Amino acid sequence: MNKENTLDTMHHAAIRVKDVKETVEWYTQRFRCNVEYQDASWAMLAFENVRLAFVLAEQHPPHIAIIGDPGAYGEPKLHRDGTSSVYVKDPNGNNIEVLALAPEIAPAAKS
Amino acid sequence: MNKENTLDTMHHAAIRVKDVKETVEWYTQRFRCNVEYQDASWAMLAFENVRLAFVLAEQHPPHIAIIGDPGAYGEPKLHRDGTSSVYVKDPNGNNIEVLALAPEIAPAAKS
Repeated sequence: MNKENTLDTMHHAAIRVKDVKETVEWYTQRFRCNVEYQDASWAMLAFENVRLAFVLAEQHPPHIAIIGDPGAYGEPKLHRDGTSSVYVKDPNGNNIEVLALAPEIAPAAKS
Repeated sequence: MNKENTLDTMHHAAIRVKDVKETVEWYTQRFRCNVEYQDASWAMLAFENVRLAFVLAEQHPPHIAIIGDPGAYGEPKLHRDGTSSVYVKDPNGNNIEVLALAPEIAPAAKS
């Protein structure tokens, strides 16, 4: 699907939780992971190789986010952190988020 | 939780599907990933950084597998491929599989 001869990268898996704070505590007490983001409505934990997100059932569906070109799947939604994505459903109704990372800030021109 | 000063690794995320073959085709047509295992009842796709498993709803719950010490969570179940694991539930009822990889075959003693 892409040019490079490598595999695609999963950015995160998101699972539904009832209480974000309680869930973050449960995971961080049992596993070595870093809290990348946390508020009352969602959180993102970084593991060594991939992230695990917690979302409230009434706000977000559980999903798998794969880094790719969301524009190939629809009209990308731009997020506040600079990422953009499109949600698609697999044949079973599972939600897949095709996610483009925020563009790098162009470095200052070398002189 | 462990000795090394690194983060834990997610081995795979497993999502429920109705038809394994159809689902593998859908993902491999859209994303760059390798089919590590596939039969009629489950499949494992390898992405660059982590695996995505497909399980039949009537056979397995959706789950997140994290590499760790299953013995710290219960009586590990030994699988045919040499791995062993224990399933635990987070406070929301999400299934977490704590998975120990198969032990390496001991290399021949150096002489």
